[in-house]
Amino acid sequence: MRTKQVEKIRIFSLGGVGEIGKNMYVVELDDDIFVIDAGVMFPEDEMLGIDKVIPDISYLVERQDRIKAIFLTHGHEEHIGAIAYVLKKIAVPVYGTKLTLGLAESILKEQGITNAKLIEIRSDSEIFFDKAKVTFFRTIHSIPDSVGISIHTSQGAIVYTSDFKFDQTPYGKNRADLGKMAQIGEQGVLCLLSDSTNAERPGYTGSDTLVAQEIADVIYNADGRVFVACYASNVTRIQQVLHAAKQYGRKVAVVGKTLHKVMDIAVRLGYLHLPEKVTISIYDIDRYDDKELIILTTGGHGEPMSALARMAKQAHKQVNIKKGDTVIVAASVMPGYELIFSKTIDSLYRAGANVIYRERKVHVSGHGCQEELKLMLNLMKPKYFIPVHGEYRMQKAHANLAKAVGISEERTFLIDKGDVIEFRNGVARPGGKVPYGNILIDGLGIGDVGNIVLRDRRLLSQDGILIVVVTLSKEAKKIIAGPEIISRGFVYVRESETLLDEATKIVANIVNKCLQTYVIEWSSLKSNIREALSQFLFEKTKRKPMILPIIMEV
Amino acid sequence: MRTKQVEKIRIFSLGGVGEIGKNMYVVELDDDIFVIDAGVMFPEDEMLGIDKVIPDISYLVERQDRIKAIFLTHGHEEHIGAIAYVLKKIAVPVYGTKLTLGLAESILKEQGITNAKLIEIRSDSEIFFDKAKVTFFRTIHSIPDSVGISIHTSQGAIVYTSDFKFDQTPYGKNRADLGKMAQIGEQGVLCLLSDSTNAERPGYTGSDTLVAQEIADVIYNADGRVFVACYASNVTRIQQVLHAAKQYGRKVAVVGKTLHKVMDIAVRLGYLHLPEKVTISIYDIDRYDDKELIILTTGGHGEPMSALARMAKQAHKQVNIKKGDTVIVAASVMPGYELIFSKTIDSLYRAGANVIYRERKVHVSGHGCQEELKLMLNLMKPKYFIPVHGEYRMQKAHANLAKAVGISEERTFLIDKGDVIEFRNGVARPGGKVPYGNILIDGLGIGDVGNIVLRDRRLLSQDGILIVVVTLSKEAKKIIAGPEIISRGFVYVRESETLLDEATKIVANIVNKCLQTYVIEWSSLKSNIREALSQFLFEKTKRKPMILPIIMEV
Repeated sequence: MRTKQVEKIRIFSLGGVGEIGKNMYVVELDDDIFVIDAGVMFPEDEMLGIDKVIPDISYLVERQDRIKAIFLTHGHEEHIGAIAYVLKKIAVPVYGTKLTLGLAESILKEQGITNAKLIEIRSDSEIFFDKAKVTFFRTIHSIPDSVGISIHTSQGAIVYTSDFKFDQTPYGKNRADLGKMAQIGEQGVLCLLSDSTNAERPGYTGSDTLVAQEIADVIYNADGRVFVACYASNVTRIQQVLHAAKQYGRKVAVVGKTLHKVMDIAVRLGYLHLPEKVTISIYDIDRYDDKELIILTTGGHGEPMSALARMAKQAHKQVNIKKGDTVIVAASVMPGYELIFSKTIDSLYRAGANVIYRERKVHVSGHGCQEELKLMLNLMKPKYFIPVHGEYRMQKAHANLAKAVGISEERTFLIDKGDVIEFRNGVARPGGKVPYGNILIDGLGIGDVGNIVLRDRRLLSQDGILIVVVTLSKEAKKIIAGPEIISRGFVYVRESETLLDEATKIVANIVNKCLQTYVIEWSSLKSNIREALSQFLFEKTKRKPMILPIIMEV
Repeated sequence: MRTKQVEKIRIFSLGGVGEIGKNMYVVELDDDIFVIDAGVMFPEDEMLGIDKVIPDISYLVERQDRIKAIFLTHGHEEHIGAIAYVLKKIAVPVYGTKLTLGLAESILKEQGITNAKLIEIRSDSEIFFDKAKVTFFRTIHSIPDSVGISIHTSQGAIVYTSDFKFDQTPYGKNRADLGKMAQIGEQGVLCLLSDSTNAERPGYTGSDTLVAQEIADVIYNADGRVFVACYASNVTRIQQVLHAAKQYGRKVAVVGKTLHKVMDIAVRLGYLHLPEKVTISIYDIDRYDDKELIILTTGGHGEPMSALARMAKQAHKQVNIKKGDTVIVAASVMPGYELIFSKTIDSLYRAGANVIYRERKVHVSGHGCQEELKLMLNLMKPKYFIPVHGEYRMQKAHANLAKAVGISEERTFLIDKGDVIEFRNGVARPGGKVPYGNILIDGLGIGDVGNIVLRDRRLLSQDGILIVVVTLSKEAKKIIAGPEIISRGFVYVRESETLLDEATKIVANIVNKCLQTYVIEWSSLKSNIREALSQFLFEKTKRKPMILPIIMEV
C-alpha cells in the first residue's frame, strides 16, 4: 500500500517544550493533522491553588475536521492526562497500546466520556493514512507498553521517541526494538523529536534490574516493616516490590487510591504479575508481624511524598510510621517539589524510620542520560532534529549532544510552544507560530482562572487584604454606617487595634470630604481611599495589603 | 590565670538545628550565659510574605543580666543577621574578628544601633571569664576571618566549629589552624558542636584554588562579556574574579547594593585586594569592548539569582543579558530555591547567553563533606558530640559519621531547638527544654505575623476571597443596601456573573428569613451565610474561597 506525496509538513508542540509535562505534539501533512500525546502538567508553586494545567487546544478545535488521529505513546499522566478534556471538544479516534488505552479509558470514565473511539495498537501495527504510514517501536520506560512513533511520509519519516532509556538489562519482559529503530534510521529519518529530560546528565541511567536487587536487598535486611513509596504509574517498580515480597515471605498492603487504580488496570490487562497470596488489606496489617509486612504507597495525584509525609506526622488515616520502620523512597524529586521532598525525609527520620533514598540505588530515572540520547541520535541519523520533552536548558543540552554526534546547529531547532517547523521537499525552515497557551484547572473550573485571578492570589498571599466598607445615604449626603475595616492575612488584629483605628479615621475623613462636593464621584472616592490607606499602611508597616473599598448606597 | 570550677554546663540551640539558617547556640556555665552567633533565616515558601525569620530569644531576654558575651564566628547573615534585633533587647558585649565585626557593625548601623560594645578578637586571643577561658581557631570557609570557638572549662572544652571545610590548598592567605585544633583535641574536648550542612555528601568539597583556575579559564576563553553571579558574602569568590580580571585585562563593573556594601567593608578592612584600575562604574560599560568587561552581580539579600533573572528578562535597570554573553553562576542552590534557580538558568539560555554552572567547577561549597567532617571529629576526639547547623537528616547523617569514627550513639545527641544537654562531672544527659520559636519579620513588623495571619494568607492564596456586604435597617427590619458580593482571586468575574448572581440570591434569602425572626442573632446570621455560600460554591466549582460576610446596621 503506497501513500500519497506530501507537499508541506508542519511540526509543532502545544505542550512539553520549555517545561516538564503536558506533552502534546502536532504533525500536519498538508491538510491532515496528527496529534501525539495529550498530557497534563502539575502546577508550579507560582500557580496558586491550581490543580492541573492542560494545553490550550483552540488551534485544534478550530480545525477538528482535519484531525485524523490522536496517538498516545504511554500511560503517564504527562502524556495522557488531558485526553478527556481533548475528547470533550474533538471527536477523533485515539490509538495506543493496551495498557496505555486501559489507563486512558479510566481517565475518560472518571470524566463521564463513554463514547470515545479507542483503537488498540501493538508495536508491530502499521496504520495507513492518505499521506502516511504510521508504525511504532517498543521503548524502555518506567511503565510497560511504551512506544515511539514513526510517521512515514514521502519526504521521509518523522520520528517521536517519547520517553525512553536504553536499559540493556531491563526488568521483566520489556525489550527495546533496537533493530527496528536502526531500520527506521537506515530508511531515512527526516526529523527526530527526542526526550530531553536527562540531557544534562552525563553517562547512562542505571538499570532497573540493579534497582530490583537493591530493593530486594533492603527488604531482606530490614528488621521491621518496610514502606515503599513510588509513583503510582511506575508499574516496573511496583512489580519489583511484589516479587521481593514473595521472595522473602512478606505481605504487601497497598495504600493510595491512584495506586489501587493503576494496579487494578495493570493486573487486569496482564502487565503486572500479582504473586499468589502476597497482597493483603491495609486493615489486616495488625495480624502480621512487622517483619512480614511491606506497605506500598503513593499519595494524591499518584506522587509518592504526600502520603509518606502524613504517615511520618502520625496523621494518616490507615497507617503511620513508627520507630524501626524502613522507608524506601523509590522516586526522584519532581522539579519544584525539592522542599517538600526534603522536609518529608526529615519527618521520616524524626519519626524514627530508617530512610533509604539517595545513598542506595533504590530508584533510577525512566529517562535516558547523555550516552543513551546520543545512541538514539546515532540509530535514527535524522536529517533534522527537534529536542522536546524538557525545560529549555535541557533542550539546549540535547542540541549540544546532537552537535557532538554530527547534526549541525542549522539542522537542530530549539522550539518553544507554538513554533512551527515546516518541511518542503525535505528541507526545513521555521514556519511561523500557532496559538498556544496554558489552560488552568482549579476544581471544576477549566480556564476560568486566568492571569488576573492568579495575580490577585499572589497579592493576597503576600500581605493579605484590607476591606473597607461604608454605607452612605445619597440623599442625606452622610455616612450612615461604617466605615468598617476588616483585614485578613495582614496583621493579627488584636495587636494592631490602634493602627486600624487610625485607618478608619482616615477613611471617614476622605468620605466626609467627598460628600461635601456637589457631584459625588464614586470611582474617585474609591481610589482616594485606596491611595490614602495604602500610603498610611506602608509608612507604618512597610507592607502592601490589597485594599478593597466597598461603598454601599442607600 | 585559672578559671573556677563549673558544676553544671547546659548547651542548647535557639536556632540552626532542624533547619538551615538563624544559627544561635547557648552555653551556660552554672549561672553564666554565653551566646554564640545570632543569625537570620530567609523564609521558606510556606511563610507567605515573610521577609526574614529570627530566633525567639525570650529565654535570653528574661536572663539578660546573666549573659556574659555574644560571640560571632563569621560574617554570614545566617550567623550575624539577627544581631541588631538581639542587641535591641539585650545589652551585652559582642566578640568577633575584624571582618565579622565590620559586617555586624553595618547591620547595626542600618537598624540605628550605635552604642553596641564590639570587641575585636584575633584567632590567638584568649578571653578569660569567671568559669571559662575562651579561645578561637581559624577555619576555612567562603568568607575570610572565620573562626571556631573553644570554651575551656573545668569539665573540658566545649568546641563549636561553626561553618568550615578543610581546603588543603585554600585560595589566598587563609589557613586553617590545624595544629591548634589537634592541640584542643589532645587537651580534652567534653563536647563538640560541628557543621552538618554537607554531612550527606561523600568525599571532599573541592578546593577554592581549583575554582579560581576554572573561573579564570572561562574568563580567558569568553568571546564577549562575562557575568559572574555569586553570594555577596562570598569574599573569596569575589577576590578570584578581581584577580582574573586583572590577569586578562578586563574591567569589573559591580551591580547590587549588598555586594557594594560587602566589598566596601572587606576592602576597607584589608580582606579584599582591589587590583589597581580594575573596577569601573556600571554606567561606563558602554565605553569598553565586550571582551574587556566582567559584570559581577548579586540580587536582593545578597543572593545571586534574582538580579540575573531580571537581566535575562531584559528588565534590569542597569545592564541586561545579550547574545554572546557568558554567565558564570558561582553559587549552589539554597534549599527551597531550586525552581527559581533552574528557571533563571532557562531564561539566561533563552536570552542567548552561554551559561556555566554545573558542568564546570566554578563554585564549591564553603562546607566540608563527609571526609572533612570525620577529620574534624578525629582531631577533636570529643567525649560527646552534637551535630548542628543543618536539617534533621543532615544532623542524622553527621551522627552516622561520628559513629563510624568511634563516637557511640549514646554519646551523640540529635537535638532539636530548645533541647538542653546538661553536663555534670563530665557526664552528659538530656536536661529538659527551654522555650524557643520563630519570630517572623514582615516589613517593619517583628513578630506581629503569627500563625493565624499565615493561615489566612495560605487560604487566600489557594482559592481567593469572597466578600458579602449587606446593610440592614434594624428598625425597619429590612435590607436597605446589598447584598453585594465582591471576589478577589476566586474566579474571573466577567465569566462567572450567573454564579455570583445566584450566590447573591442565596444570601438575600438567608438575610430576609433572619429578619423575620423576633431576635436577630448576628453571629448566627453570619455563619449561616458562610455555610450556605461555602456549600453552594463548592458544589458549583469544587473550590473553597474564604467567605467574609459583613453586616452593616443602620
